Amino acid sequence: MSILVVGSVAFDNIASPSGSAENILGGAATYFALAASYFTGVRVVAVVGDDFNSDHELVLKRRGIDTRGIERATGKTFRWGGHYTDNLNEAKTDFTELNVFEQFQPKIPKAYHDTKFLFLANIHPTLQSAVRQEMDGVRFTGGDTMNYWINNTPTELTGMLKLVNVLLINDTETKMIAHESNLPRAAQKVLAMGPEALVIKHGEYGATIFFREGAFGIGHHPFRAPTLPIDEVRDPTGAGDSFAGGFMGYIASQEELNREVLKRALFYGGVMGSFAVERFGTERLQSLTREEIDERFQVFRELTHLE
Amino acid sequence: MSILVVGSVAFDNIASPSGSAENILGGAATYFALAASYFTGVRVVAVVGDDFNSDHELVLKRRGIDTRGIERATGKTFRWGGHYTDNLNEAKTDFTELNVFEQFQPKIPKAYHDTKFLFLANIHPTLQSAVRQEMDGVRFTGGDTMNYWINNTPTELTGMLKLVNVLLINDTETKMIAHESNLPRAAQKVLAMGPEALVIKHGEYGATIFFREGAFGIGHHPFRAPTLPIDEVRDPTGAGDSFAGGFMGYIASQEELNREVLKRALFYGGVMGSFAVERFGTERLQSLTREEIDERFQVFRELTHLE
Repeated sequence: MSILVVGSVAFDNIASPSGSAENILGGAATYFALAASYFTGVRVVAVVGDDFNSDHELVLKRRGIDTRGIERATGKTFRWGGHYTDNLNEAKTDFTELNVFEQFQPKIPKAYHDTKFLFLANIHPTLQSAVRQEMDGVRFTGGDTMNYWINNTPTELTGMLKLVNVLLINDTETKMIAHESNLPRAAQKVLAMGPEALVIKHGEYGATIFFREGAFGIGHHPFRAPTLPIDEVRDPTGAGDSFAGGFMGYIASQEELNREVLKRALFYGGVMGSFAVERFGTERLQSLTREEIDERFQVFRELTHLE
Repeated sequence: MSILVVGSVAFDNIASPSGSAENILGGAATYFALAASYFTGVRVVAVVGDDFNSDHELVLKRRGIDTRGIERATGKTFRWGGHYTDNLNEAKTDFTELNVFEQFQPKIPKAYHDTKFLFLANIHPTLQSAVRQEMDGVRFTGGDTMNYWINNTPTELTGMLKLVNVLLINDTETKMIAHESNLPRAAQKVLAMGPEALVIKHGEYGATIFFREGAFGIGHHPFRAPTLPIDEVRDPTGAGDSFAGGFMGYIASQEELNREVLKRALFYGGVMGSFAVERFGTERLQSLTREEIDERFQVFRELTHLE
């Protein structure tokens, strides 16, 4: 099986209490693709500028990622600069230059049309919906969004929510979409808008998955995957996208699609997010082994396991 | 077995998005005692004023709590007023009237001296240390503190930390004591100051226990007890003290004192905290059954349990 991710490829300038880095490869689709590549084949649809060279592409290709869907446009690649102070949970944006990403119109190669798993990273909800409709043979779709779209394009977002099987967002975004400050109630409201499952990412505390009644099996209890606090958080950038890559990548690697698979996927999401933050940019995600990943999976599992 | 708690009994005025209540029985020792009473015998040392009547005392006595250590002083009982807005994690204090609590000098009845488990709720660290030294036969001591003592009496706090087996505080307090923004590193620094174990309460996300190397068994991994998000959070007041009551009460009920007991205790802490917030003040803690408690323990356990 393979998974298609549609989203941003970017160059980032990042500063944190642990140091700084400039012009490093980033973007939601990059983090997602690298994280998912440890579980399944990955295909990418994105747009880059003239400054994206073969060395950058090699970062993806070395992980076996299919880059045929990365469009080369005239101009510069999307650039983002941000920094973290002692509160590593919150990025302060220094600058955003959309560049070629501003006119991004996802073009899906014919060869990608048989992909059964799809992840719509954080782009305009109208583009997300268009991709989902074009990919009419997909079996399972995940989606992301952000406060900007929640505030500025609520109608378009509502349309997108009807087209995804699972939405992956954080606590604040959940409450914003639902106009409800109580998290479990907000989760139920979001589920009523379309998705069969909602993954709420809690940053360093892990993530919770809420299920629509009857979706993926019986039962109404949510499930939580905790993450172990990390001794060395160098750069939180991309943690959420890496989480999504681990979560969706694991799902795409499984024959069955049931609650137990989604629960294990939630743990794998936490594992990939926790690796991502240990080094600047995508460095840690480029050189993992499946053994390291499964070892951490066990540690996270034992973190809450009573005898 | 029984446990002795030393701390505040108070009357609270509380307002939250769910409503408001005035002059209701509260205080750290009250919440702790009620929560612990479902697991073990509880003895209380506190001070109250003329306004504390037999009806108030009956709230404790009905749960079998030994109130002989509650001193009656001339004047009014400690009073606190606070409110919560949509962010239920943060209480805004409207007023604090220490009243008779200002001159609190814990007087431990002779009959209490054989108590083997001790909890030092949030009072001046010098008083905490004095109580611990007087109770020289205790087997296991837990302690709490707050930002006020961390900032204003660091030397006295350092002395107290050497006298407790386990410290129960939140994320922010841990980082403040350690002068370290990374939580696992901060935890190690706090452990190096004295306690064998450190329980860090994460509010709605549960709690993590860190162990000093070699304490209570082998291994160096921390352990986390998640809590289920609660549909109806009416009043978060006393959640931390109820957590401590469940945690310490369960420990006091066990023959052995090992890591597995501390792990289960962490879950019971989360259970009691989650019950406390469902109603205003101590209402929910007054009328639980052990069956309800164990049922929620199972729900919390299954929340993160993979097959």
